[in-house]
Formats: sequence, structure tokens, C-alpha cells
Amino acid sequence: MTFDGMWAELDPIGRDRQTGGYRRFAWTAEDLALREWFTAQAERAGLDVTTDRGGNIWAWWGDPDRAAKEGRAGLVIGSHLDSVPDGGAFDGPLGVVSSLAALDALRDKGWTPSRPLGIAVFSDEEGARFGVACGGSRIITGALAADRARGLKDADGTTMAEAMSAAGFDPGQVGRDDETLRRIGTFVELHVEQGRALVDARDGRGAAVGVASSIWPHGRWRLDLRGRADHAGTTRLRDRQDPMLHLATAIQAARSAAEEHDALATIGKVRVEPNGVNAIPSAAIAWLDSRGPDEADVRKVVRAVAEAVGVEPVEESWTPATDFDTDLRDRIANLLADPDGAPAPVLPTGAGHDAGILSAAGVPTAMLFVRNLTGVSHSPVEHAETDDCHRGVAALARVIENLA
Amino acid sequence: MTFDGMWAELDPIGRDRQTGGYRRFAWTAEDLALREWFTAQAERAGLDVTTDRGGNIWAWWGDPDRAAKEGRAGLVIGSHLDSVPDGGAFDGPLGVVSSLAALDALRDKGWTPSRPLGIAVFSDEEGARFGVACGGSRIITGALAADRARGLKDADGTTMAEAMSAAGFDPGQVGRDDETLRRIGTFVELHVEQGRALVDARDGRGAAVGVASSIWPHGRWRLDLRGRADHAGTTRLRDRQDPMLHLATAIQAARSAAEEHDALATIGKVRVEPNGVNAIPSAAIAWLDSRGPDEADVRKVVRAVAEAVGVEPVEESWTPATDFDTDLRDRIANLLADPDGAPAPVLPTGAGHDAGILSAAGVPTAMLFVRNLTGVSHSPVEHAETDDCHRGVAALARVIENLA
Repeated sequence: MTFDGMWAELDPIGRDRQTGGYRRFAWTAEDLALREWFTAQAERAGLDVTTDRGGNIWAWWGDPDRAAKEGRAGLVIGSHLDSVPDGGAFDGPLGVVSSLAALDALRDKGWTPSRPLGIAVFSDEEGARFGVACGGSRIITGALAADRARGLKDADGTTMAEAMSAAGFDPGQVGRDDETLRRIGTFVELHVEQGRALVDARDGRGAAVGVASSIWPHGRWRLDLRGRADHAGTTRLRDRQDPMLHLATAIQAARSAAEEHDALATIGKVRVEPNGVNAIPSAAIAWLDSRGPDEADVRKVVRAVAEAVGVEPVEESWTPATDFDTDLRDRIANLLADPDGAPAPVLPTGAGHDAGILSAAGVPTAMLFVRNLTGVSHSPVEHAETDDCHRGVAALARVIENLA
Repeated sequence: MTFDGMWAELDPIGRDRQTGGYRRFAWTAEDLALREWFTAQAERAGLDVTTDRGGNIWAWWGDPDRAAKEGRAGLVIGSHLDSVPDGGAFDGPLGVVSSLAALDALRDKGWTPSRPLGIAVFSDEEGARFGVACGGSRIITGALAADRARGLKDADGTTMAEAMSAAGFDPGQVGRDDETLRRIGTFVELHVEQGRALVDARDGRGAAVGVASSIWPHGRWRLDLRGRADHAGTTRLRDRQDPMLHLATAIQAARSAAEEHDALATIGKVRVEPNGVNAIPSAAIAWLDSRGPDEADVRKVVRAVAEAVGVEPVEESWTPATDFDTDLRDRIANLLADPDGAPAPVLPTGAGHDAGILSAAGVPTAMLFVRNLTGVSHSPVEHAETDDCHRGVAALARVIENLA
């Protein structure tokens, strides 16, 4: 099937009619529909489909186990299909659909790989439901312990283990998966860009495709801001212990500390308890996301917010800086040079990716970015032009030809 | 059944095991269990039970329609059984259980009323589910139009009409109910105090029971703080339109304006969209509750918050000051005088009540307050001592004897 045909099939799955955004959360009915869609596509293409111990799906052309034993571990391409709440259409699916389309294009012209070629669909990349991003790749690399993964809870109190069981995936098998890791010789993830670097590249002439240099260090912290529940209409101001005032302080401290330390900081998720119009809350739980080029600066931001509100943040995840394989990066940038010989733009990103998890686990890894005209991401406004998507598929196909 | 026996039966219904608070929302399974419990109690006491066009339950001793025609409209006592999220055990149920106990006590000693005596259980007093407080009494007095009531939505998008239907109550009959109103000659609501005035009364010696003077003007406003959804890890600070910064401003402006204008202001409910850890929100919806002794001051608070965030607040409800019937108030305060002749304490309240709605509709109305040791309300910490509850029942019985 063509790129455009596959894109049209994915379009309605998990789309919210009111916002136009996607709600594709791990181990939900929408997630299962996406998994079934990919499995059907891969089987139609004659690939062997398996699911690993992290719930990630693999579709192989060639026998990856025999090849690994012979020292020819596979080339893997792919991305993820889940979304943040009200996310855009491209973040994740663009890499998966481009992988299927690139493989089709190469096969149509009679090409066959010199080593096994796999397409991966990573599970729960956004961490929207259980709070830990890149859950699937973290589980198989051991970065997320099996017991912790199984016990993670969603907003309704459902554990990941329960959600997996309900979706027909045995949570008992969750864990580090060396058999799967051994098959991956190289990983290349194509992804929509999440900023405007490619729009502004080449002195404003722009570029459809770029190559990642590194992923900023980034993490998530929970702030448990406690107060005392009370009646909004009968409690004197001086008798109140209102946690919303601390929430206001935290929001402002995050912004000013990020400005001061040349980093990013966001409070984008809040849970107010009990969240009643006429009730002074007993608690406001706020999640702080912070990232930046320099790890020490990110730590300073978190420290500043903690001191402003007087609580110790709970670190829910932390990912150090990831520098992608420099040889691979340069090779791909030169391979995708424009007609006058200028290599493809090379850019860092503040967003975490499964590619970063695999890279940190020692897999030679690279990322391709496709231009996003709005520069906006994690939003229905996120947008890559169809021509740029096709250029991404062509670039990925050239990378595959070169590496496999 | 004794007060203590009835209290023990109500105790487990709708209680959250983790917080110890109650979650008794209109037209839910918990609400139905409470309605069934009251109906069974009232029928056991030989009362005639009916439900009016607002979903409120009435249990009558005597024929209220014939008496009303004869110019002897009934004396009604009662309160409500629903709660705020994680509310306390007393707010509402204390008035209902005390009413049943007071009636039992009077009958046990052979007393019979000179006019019909009714016990009312008002529906949806807290407005926790559909956002409008005192929904049941507002509907029957016409203060809440039938169409607006039916169309109110809860957090899941369920309308009040759908919730009523699911609970077996025909939403088609919702509306002003003059037949019911004609039966009410006088209304007396007993309620747990929601502050510490009775603890501090009589120069700190305290008083178990007090009488209400007035209900402060109070209202609820919604602030739609809009921003632009974006990726928390890739969007530069200067490119952001983050509505959380406006939320912080609103929280702080509400507090400082309330201090300045001698009023109360609370932001206790917030909805962040999409509420993802790594997503700059597209919107933060905040609800402002404000009240105070003076209406103009309350309006100034709302104005100040609106100007601080630059949005026009949506007024979701507004209730002007309610002064209870002064003759009735003085009569009851003297009736409940302490042994040395000092009348019962008379106090205003910032909390809205069905008594306030009926008073505004022209019904001679009074309220009794029972001492709350913590002074805390809308919280599991809310607490009245059992001895004080029994004193409340005795006081209510004396009021009934005097008025009926």
C-alpha cells in the first residue's frame, strides 16, 4: 500500500472529534486497533511479526537470530503509534508508516537486504497513561525494572499489569529482553521534527529532512503540594492551608528558573483533590518536566522549584544526555546531502525517543527528522506537508540501501 | 430508630476508603441508596413519602394539601444527603437524621402536631456533579429553569436529564412545583456549623446550637484561560502560550483581592487540557468561588481576578444575600436560650443552603447550626460531637413543638 493509503487508514483511529487531536494510549482499545493495523500491514508485506517482553512489535524481513549469530545483526527502522492526550497525527506514526513505505519502495525495485531488516513499533512511547515515557524500550533494555513497570498506575488506578492482561498481553513475561536486543545491529528512527530548526535551516531556505545529533537530558518530577480540605464559603483566609497558592508559586518558579538557567521547564499536568468548586483543596499534585542542553542547569531548575514551594520533588523519570553514534550520524548526513553537496542539517532535540533509550543501551542509533511547518508538536496543529513526508520516505529508503 | 442507630446505618454509604471522605453525588448509585434508606425510615415512621418535580423527597405527617387549603400550611424540617467530593459525614445528613430523630422523640411522648409536619430531603444540594448548588430547591422554586437543569453536564458529559433517567426519575416532569411550595408554611433546616463561631461563642465557653441570621451573597465563575498546546521539550520559552502562567496569576489575584475587599475567594477546581506531563496545555479552566458580607465587595473580587488574567468570567451561579425571617429567628433564639436566659447565638454564614433558596422564594425560613469542633467543613475532618448532635435533636424537637 502507498504511504498516502496507509496514512488515510490510520487517520480516524483514536481521533477526538471535538479537539481534532489523538488519544492513543497504551493498552487501550485504540492501541490494540493500531497494533492490529500494523500487524496486518506487516504480514501483507510478508514480514515475520513478533512481540517482545516489553510489548513492542517487530516485523522482520530475514532471520534475525541466525544473522546475529553470524555477526550480521539486523538493521531496524520504526517508531511508535501511541500519542499524548490530544496529540498530533505525525509524532510516532510518521516513522512507522514511512518504514513500511520505504521497505515497499525498495522491494518494488527488486532490492534485497544484505542483513535482516526489521520494523519496530515501540509500545507506550509517550507514557501518557502510566507516566513513564518510552516504557516499551525501557523495559527491554532493563532501564525500567519489570516490577516497577507492572505496578505503574493510570489515573483510574489501573496498573500496567492489569491493562496488559486486559489487552491479552501476559504481564508475567515483562522484563529485559536480551534475545530481542541481540537482533538489533543498528537502529534508525524517522520522526517528525518537534521544532522549527528545519524550517529555518540553510539560512531560511529550509530542508525537508535532517539528522539528530543528541537528545537533551530530561526528566519528570512530581510535586506533592499538601493543604487542608475546607469549605470555600466559611473558612477565613487566615485559617486556610490552600495548596493552590503553592501551585501558583511552582508554576511561576518553573518559568523563571528555566529562563535563568537556559533550560525548559513546564508544569502541564495537575491533579487537584478533591477538585470541587466550593472546596479548598486538600492537595494539588503537579508534574514538572524539565530539560536543557546542560544537565547541571536542568538540576538547578528542579532545585529552584523545590525551594520555592518547600517540598522535595519525586523524580519519576530521568534520562541523561544522549549523543547519537557520530560515525553513523555523519554518514547519513552526507548520504542525504543536497544537490550542491551540503550535508543534511544536524540538530539536537529536547524530546525523548526510543532511539535515545536504545542508544544509551549501546545500540548504534540514528534519527531522521522530517520538517514540521508549524514547529508545534504534541498538538493537533503539528503538521508535515505530504511532499516532505514523501521526501522522508525516500531518505529513509536511501539510508536502508546504504546500511543493509 | 435512635439517632445513633440511623447514623451508623448511613456511615458506610458512599464513603471512600482511602480518604475517609464521602462521594455522594446526585443521581448516582450512592444517591439512590441514600434515597432508599430515607424512604424506608420515613415509611417505618408512618409518614407519606412523595418526590417532587425537582427530585426532592418529602415525608409528611398529616395531609399537607388539605391543611394548606385551610390556611394551615405545614412545618417542614430537613436537609440533604448528598456531599461534595471527599466531604464530611455531617454536612446534610445531620439535618435529615436529626429530623427523623426529633419526630420520633416527640411521638414517643404522645405529642401530635397542630399542622402537618414534613421532612424534606433536598436533591443535589452541593452541586458537586453538575456544577449548580441547591439544584433541587432551585428547580421547584423556578430559580433554575427546567431546560437549563436538564442540560447541565457532569465531568463525563452525562446530562442531568440522562442521569435522572438512569436513576428512574422522569426528567420530563422537572420544573417549578407550586403544588409542593404551597404545602410549606415554614421551613427549618438543621445543619452542622461550617466554621468555629459556636466553638468561640459566649466568650469562649461555646454553645452546642446556634441560629442563622443570613447567608452571604455568593457565586461561582468560570475562567477559560486559553493557550496553545505544544511540546514541553522542544518549544522555546519565548514561543510558548502557556495558560498555566495565567492560572498562577488567577490564584494569586483571587487571594489578594479577597484580602483587600474583606471577602472570600477560592480557586478549588481546575481542568487542565490535555493534562499531559510533557505537553504545554492548550487551556486551563479554573472555577472561582467568591462570597462575603457585602455584594459590592464580592463583585470587586471577581473584577480584580478578571482584570489580572484578561478574560471575562462566565457567571455559573449567583445568589444574593439572604436574610432569614427575623421574627422566626428571634423566636427560635429565645426558645433555645441557655438556663441563665441568654438567647442562642445568632450567626451569619458564607455557605449556601436550600433554606436560603426557599427563603428567597418567600418561605419563612430558619436554620439551626450544631457546633463543629474542628470548624472544618467539606472535608473528612468535619466533626460534631455525639453529645452536641443529641442537643441538636432536642433543640429541633423544641422548635417543632413550638411551631407546630
